[in-house]
Amino acid sequence: MSSTEATTATTTVAAPTVVPVALGKRGYDILIGPGLIDGAGEELARRFPGSRYAIITDETVAEHHLDRLTGSMTDAGLDFTTVELTAGEGSKSFPVFESAIDCVLSARLERGDLLIALGGGVIGDLVGFVAGVVRRGMRFVQMPTTLLAQVDSSVGGKTGINTRHGKNLVGVFHQPSLVLADTSALDTLAPRDFRAGYAEVAKYGLIDDPAFFAWLEANWRDVFSGGPGRIEAIATACRAKAHVVKIDEKETGPRALLNLGHTFGHALEAVTHYDGTRLVHGEGVAIGMALAHEFSVHMNLCSPDDAARVKAHLEAVGLPTRLQDVPGGVGTAEELMQAIYQDKKVKRGRLTFILTRGVGKSFIADDVAPDVVKAFLGEKLRG
Amino acid sequence: MSSTEATTATTTVAAPTVVPVALGKRGYDILIGPGLIDGAGEELARRFPGSRYAIITDETVAEHHLDRLTGSMTDAGLDFTTVELTAGEGSKSFPVFESAIDCVLSARLERGDLLIALGGGVIGDLVGFVAGVVRRGMRFVQMPTTLLAQVDSSVGGKTGINTRHGKNLVGVFHQPSLVLADTSALDTLAPRDFRAGYAEVAKYGLIDDPAFFAWLEANWRDVFSGGPGRIEAIATACRAKAHVVKIDEKETGPRALLNLGHTFGHALEAVTHYDGTRLVHGEGVAIGMALAHEFSVHMNLCSPDDAARVKAHLEAVGLPTRLQDVPGGVGTAEELMQAIYQDKKVKRGRLTFILTRGVGKSFIADDVAPDVVKAFLGEKLRG
Ligand SMILES: NC(=O)c1ccc[n+]([C@@H]2O[C@H](COP(=O)([O-])OP(=O)(O)OC[C@H]3O[C@@H](n4cnc5c(N)ncnc54)[C@H](O)[C@@H]3O)[C@@H](O)[C@H]2O)c1
Ligand SMILES: NC(=O)c1ccc[n+]([C@@H]2O[C@H](COP(=O)([O-])OP(=O)(O)OC[C@H]3O[C@@H](n4cnc5c(N)ncnc54)[C@H](O)[C@@H]3O)[C@@H](O)[C@H]2O)c1
Ligand SMILES: [Zn+2]
Ligand SMILES: [Zn+2]
Repeated sequence: MSSTEATTATTTVAAPTVVPVALGKRGYDILIGPGLIDGAGEELARRFPGSRYAIITDETVAEHHLDRLTGSMTDAGLDFTTVELTAGEGSKSFPVFESAIDCVLSARLERGDLLIALGGGVIGDLVGFVAGVVRRGMRFVQMPTTLLAQVDSSVGGKTGINTRHGKNLVGVFHQPSLVLADTSALDTLAPRDFRAGYAEVAKYGLIDDPAFFAWLEANWRDVFSGGPGRIEAIATACRAKAHVVKIDEKETGPRALLNLGHTFGHALEAVTHYDGTRLVHGEGVAIGMALAHEFSVHMNLCSPDDAARVKAHLEAVGLPTRLQDVPGGVGTAEELMQAIYQDKKVKRGRLTFILTRGVGKSFIADDVAPDVVKAFLGEKLRG
Repeated sequence: MSSTEATTATTTVAAPTVVPVALGKRGYDILIGPGLIDGAGEELARRFPGSRYAIITDETVAEHHLDRLTGSMTDAGLDFTTVELTAGEGSKSFPVFESAIDCVLSARLERGDLLIALGGGVIGDLVGFVAGVVRRGMRFVQMPTTLLAQVDSSVGGKTGINTRHGKNLVGVFHQPSLVLADTSALDTLAPRDFRAGYAEVAKYGLIDDPAFFAWLEANWRDVFSGGPGRIEAIATACRAKAHVVKIDEKETGPRALLNLGHTFGHALEAVTHYDGTRLVHGEGVAIGMALAHEFSVHMNLCSPDDAARVKAHLEAVGLPTRLQDVPGGVGTAEELMQAIYQDKKVKRGRLTFILTRGVGKSFIADDVAPDVVKAFLGEKLRG
């Protein structure tokens, strides 16, 4: 070792955590770590030599993170255009879908070129769908900037938009070619959005990883404040999701476990008319998971202690857990049941629920009697 | 055998010809024969027990064939709704795509239910795309009613719509679950549309089946008049397409051979602004195939005799073969080159053409110099 080298000050950038999604020809890597947006240009140049790009983002994300990305891509000599959409769920719609496609085609991108989804689940779902249909499928990169997107929506290839008949009813399965989850990008996220995403993190513990749930109970403050625990939590969640996606890419079986808390959660989103000022997705999921555990207690499947423990943890991080927590109320048990029936996971009148035998012991129950659910909801509404 | 049975008059309905498309889990059958629409109810009931249906068709096809289909489905006790769209290429558009999706969702079809595309390539491409995206993919049945749709568009899973940037630029690969090609449905087709479809039939001979081309030279009258040769021609074409689709489902390689005549053909469609009164797709393909052979002569690849033979056969059935055959003209060589560049099969400036060494000896040439093409077109425009 020469003395010059020995005395040079060096910045240590920790290598990102890599979680592979093993889907054969459709496989890809999830890279997790701070500062990945700043290093994106180099990473892209290395992985996709000769390709051109269209970055699609929303205005809020653009304000905080777009310059870092375009700067990095310019430094790496990459050729790209940028499209900024309105922030919010409203962009998962036919008109925005059509105009995003028009932008991509105007940029003359070819099949081997890539779209970049820089944003939360809304941008990821929309851009993934656009990538899935332009020229019958072009490649795309997920750069998730919300916690929900980093641990859930950016991984697994579900894409889509909403219609007046319900959310996510139109879309395709289309896997990204790379996911770059820049964990420091979450620092600018609204606390409420961070918490909402945390509900999905906790979900992976509750599905089948009790040790992870216990770890979260001990370390959630570090996850929220951006310590090393954040990377670890996100990586654990991504590994869990990658595993489920690998064994059931098209959601014909076990992937349904990822819907823990979601049947109730979706119903709550529906009865509050997807009004994010009242309830965001992750909050619905938090209440839904608490209810799924309580319903499992009601069905004599789960101990009351486990249900209480789940509720206590969600409340500790500031998430809602009761129907009464939703501002403006959630209507009657009958209205909730109607919303449950509308949910696309309902098949031919029988209800599919994710139930549980305790923390980390969830399972798919595909023949739950609607009457029992309704009675349970009636009880919960009475307090 | 009892005497009662022996004396009963029986109608002999020949069993349909079955061409399997061997795509593993995505595999399906193409059934070819007269009267298949009348027998569709039974066939569907047997293959997809318990499913519900939405028939999507256009008004012209509805007038001729919808009653036979709905009658047959009603007789079989099937549950279905019907959607009638405007006839013509204009229905391969975003607004019609969106409204067709809305109809399907309004009918509350679930993932296991099926759409039925009753019509030509327009209906098939649109409905296939709708099926590909509703609930991230539902099943569908192709019931092609044009010759082009029976031998080409209904088989292979390419679906899509047009945009202002070009044709078929938005869509998905989504295989049907069954194709019912009722050969007698073609009796109501306009002669011009039949001829246009015939160009695609002849194409299969020209690609790699010289014996089929010779058979067509001898039997084309029987194909046009609806004799047994029609079924044989359609089955041969479907077998050829099924084979290519099997070895290259997503068109990353040999499937490009199916584009014989299409680079020139698409350019002609573009410069005539997709005005079907001037030129329909199959006519563009006929001229394109004649040009592809002549261009191959120009490149010293193909004998002038083979090119003349191809031209003679296409002319015999009444198809156009020369740039001068397009009413209103096709502009300059430069304008045609611009249209060729816009075509999606152009990659990074190099031109991919299907060229040929003679009848049935086509191959993919992916590095054709634009100057040579332009000079050739200039010559052809001069007569
Ligand atoms: N595809 C899937 O598998 C899947 C899974 C779960 C959820 N989803 C979908 O994800 C969507 C919800 O995702 P979401 O919660 O990320 O919503 P979102 O994309 O709307 O993001 C929430 C808000 O945060 C802003 N934002 C994003 N990143 C930011 C940052 N780093 N700093 C500051 N602000 C930032 C956005 O502009 C937006 O206003 C829903 O449409 C849901 O259906 C999809
Ligand atoms: N997906 C593919 O692989 C593929 C391949 C080739 C072409 N295509 C597409 O197919 C489309 C052209 O298909 P097409 O030529 O069938 O056009 P089409 O569907 O418009 O049909 C042509 C006309 O014939 C009418 N018609 C259909 N069946 C009839 C019948 N039995 N009797 C009387 N009238 C009838 C229709 O109403 C229409 O007016 C184009 O959009 C092209 O892009 C797709
Ligand atoms: Zn969720
Ligand atoms: Zn064609």
